[in-house]
Amino acid sequence: MPSSPTRRLHLNAFLMNAGHHDAAWRHPLTEPGRVTDLTYFQQLARTAERGLLDSVFLADGLTLPRNVRHNALGGFEPLTLLSALAAVTERIGLIATVSTTFNEPFTTARAFASLDHLSGGRAGWNIVTSGNVEEARNFGRDEHLEHGLRYERAREFVDVAVKLWDSWEDDAIVLDRSNGVYADTDKVRPIDHRGTHFQVRGPLNVPRSPQGHPLLVQAGSSEDGKEFAARYAEAVFTAQQTLADAQAFYKDLKSRTARHGRAADDVRILPGVCPVIGSTEAAARALAQQLTDLQVPEYGVAQLSGMLGTDLTGLPLDGPLPELPDERDINGNKSRFRLVAELARREGLTLRELIARLGGGRGHLVVAGTAEQIADHLQEWFTEGAADGFNIMPPYLPGGLDHFVDQVVPILQARGLFRTEYTGRTLRDHYGLPRPVGSRAGLPGAGWVAQPA
Amino acid sequence: MPSSPTRRLHLNAFLMNAGHHDAAWRHPLTEPGRVTDLTYFQQLARTAERGLLDSVFLADGLTLPRNVRHNALGGFEPLTLLSALAAVTERIGLIATVSTTFNEPFTTARAFASLDHLSGGRAGWNIVTSGNVEEARNFGRDEHLEHGLRYERAREFVDVAVKLWDSWEDDAIVLDRSNGVYADTDKVRPIDHRGTHFQVRGPLNVPRSPQGHPLLVQAGSSEDGKEFAARYAEAVFTAQQTLADAQAFYKDLKSRTARHGRAADDVRILPGVCPVIGSTEAAARALAQQLTDLQVPEYGVAQLSGMLGTDLTGLPLDGPLPELPDERDINGNKSRFRLVAELARREGLTLRELIARLGGGRGHLVVAGTAEQIADHLQEWFTEGAADGFNIMPPYLPGGLDHFVDQVVPILQARGLFRTEYTGRTLRDHYGLPRPVGSRAGLPGAGWVAQPA
Repeated sequence: MPSSPTRRLHLNAFLMNAGHHDAAWRHPLTEPGRVTDLTYFQQLARTAERGLLDSVFLADGLTLPRNVRHNALGGFEPLTLLSALAAVTERIGLIATVSTTFNEPFTTARAFASLDHLSGGRAGWNIVTSGNVEEARNFGRDEHLEHGLRYERAREFVDVAVKLWDSWEDDAIVLDRSNGVYADTDKVRPIDHRGTHFQVRGPLNVPRSPQGHPLLVQAGSSEDGKEFAARYAEAVFTAQQTLADAQAFYKDLKSRTARHGRAADDVRILPGVCPVIGSTEAAARALAQQLTDLQVPEYGVAQLSGMLGTDLTGLPLDGPLPELPDERDINGNKSRFRLVAELARREGLTLRELIARLGGGRGHLVVAGTAEQIADHLQEWFTEGAADGFNIMPPYLPGGLDHFVDQVVPILQARGLFRTEYTGRTLRDHYGLPRPVGSRAGLPGAGWVAQPA
Repeated sequence: MPSSPTRRLHLNAFLMNAGHHDAAWRHPLTEPGRVTDLTYFQQLARTAERGLLDSVFLADGLTLPRNVRHNALGGFEPLTLLSALAAVTERIGLIATVSTTFNEPFTTARAFASLDHLSGGRAGWNIVTSGNVEEARNFGRDEHLEHGLRYERAREFVDVAVKLWDSWEDDAIVLDRSNGVYADTDKVRPIDHRGTHFQVRGPLNVPRSPQGHPLLVQAGSSEDGKEFAARYAEAVFTAQQTLADAQAFYKDLKSRTARHGRAADDVRILPGVCPVIGSTEAAARALAQQLTDLQVPEYGVAQLSGMLGTDLTGLPLDGPLPELPDERDINGNKSRFRLVAELARREGLTLRELIARLGGGRGHLVVAGTAEQIADHLQEWFTEGAADGFNIMPPYLPGGLDHFVDQVVPILQARGLFRTEYTGRTLRDHYGLPRPVGSRAGLPGAGWVAQPA
């Protein structure tokens, strides 16, 4: 759905420990001893900025990852890590994943407003509802909130956050030293939200931030997730295995925005892709095979068990998948369940083959080839109505990101598909999305007067 | 209570917007337009590090400050701001205030572990229970949790946090690439906490951090606060107006540690002090008077109303305080209530005089004089059993911190009272406090095995 002759790709660097391939940390090209070290992430963020990418993107979960025995874990919390990266970068966007299920809207709205100020307008929030009962158990609950209820809470959560971000008008700070007036408190308003899940008085204790509010990103592709995205998301991160599936998803999501009063072009759709880059196609395939050969089967079985909501422990690796539950009974990541189940069925994969297929991208597409071939793939999806850009998931780090920036980006630039310089300063600038007008600006009525005691 | 011939002062730079004086932002020496700008805080943190101070310290509240109309507000959230400062400093400690009343222990423990990794072991947590019903109203509650219950929750909160920090043994990461073992999960344990306020399974999703856990700081001086400090705190921030009161507090608190199995020297006691530095005593007093003359009475009345739990609006500024409630009926900051009430009574102050006295330090002592006189004051309290160091609260910024670092610190160094170089890398090193041994190290029994589905 190209919208203008200057339509350009949007590319995020999705950073993860030693790389996205689950065996990357075992490969001699990686530096897993550095994943708890800020300098490692500084280096990666600067590489991404050198490549003029739109953002660095961090996933998150609120429990120790399944089977940390067999994969590298740095453990940085996204908002703290991205705040540190804000201080050592100038232009690149900073997208943090934060759950609406285990946080409070005042706290989350405030942290993102703070990051947006710290970074001069480069904050983005990847909104997730969390899909794992083990996360619930770290927050006083024995059971995980049901999928539909999680999205109900997420909608109210984002509504409250937006009201809080809008509780300060842009020009509320007047800084009138001679009259002793710092803020025009007629332009700072309580929100007095009283809803089903939250009661929040406001206003926020952070002045309106450079972007108005952070870019809103969303990553669930279930029915609930797509409706949520159509209503709130400015960028959508999605896992798609085939061009046809990606086109269908793209068309479906863009068609849903109108009923929420939004244009199709108000949402950027960004599938994840794990590029395995080689000097020749054979070299790329050999590298992919090396990584597969380093996989620890116990790790793969545990990961796959989680995705499928089914304990696969002890099943023969060279046999087929057992019968799977119905998607209705999955209370975690429904769309990932469907994707993996369909992939296995479509290609008739054994357990071992499926684990190999999922090793690089956990359901996101892995493309192995030369830089030219990777660029061809991105271009095809971009021009054929399947993507507005991509979350780039280097299979190993830091080299996999270096190669993407040094080899693939120049090809995309030469084809006119990607920027050759940053033309703006904020993440919204990079995405070509407008700064939101404060929803409460110009409202009549009294501003905020604190109770004196 | 000097403990050794090499006993040295501990000094934090307590940073606040345009400075601690409530009229600082109106003074031409300040730069209030920069308080929403990261570069301003970078400059301040680097100044503090140039002065070899122990830490930068950030207060916090979870509501818009009373009467923001008349005082500058940057609005940075402490953990994000300190994470950004971690990236541009090398040695100085980073102490963030976070409330146990409006957060979850898993989230807070994780954020501090992340900051401790990011900073190479420089994180400190100033534990507060929050004292303001307006904070409660931002978190779904109409009433503020009662003082005693807040401390009960705080104790359990910190217990859970420590268990989470200790859920990884120091040597759990083995990084055995050839055998595919990243972490020895026998050394990573769930905590299975089931208490009155929290149920948390654990383990934490962050490996044990450089300091084991962040330095624990506490800032309440009520009975509950002192008992909490004696049990948990490694540093205590307190407001004291006179040497005699400070000595009594110091002796009292140090005498309480034994019943919790701790030595008196396990806790550093740091009164706040607001140093107004002049080239002569007269110049310092003139600067203090300039700041007083810039005070906005409405602001002072609102602040004082909050501290005293009594609406003072409309009372004659040149009259006495009205009758005050009993301390038992104060559900906010009890010790600050007592300090302010006693100050007014002892000195027979009018409302206007009291507002002037509180303008620089909100109850912390303001000392106006030459650098030599400031140093004399710090030395007296340090050697006379009233302090192990100080939270330095510059009345105006950035100049007030520059003067302290460039003029007062060299005098303290010449007198052998303060370090002349950093001898360690972590905040615990600076404070001369040991790295905690993991409380669960060497425990028998199974480590963590994630449920496969």
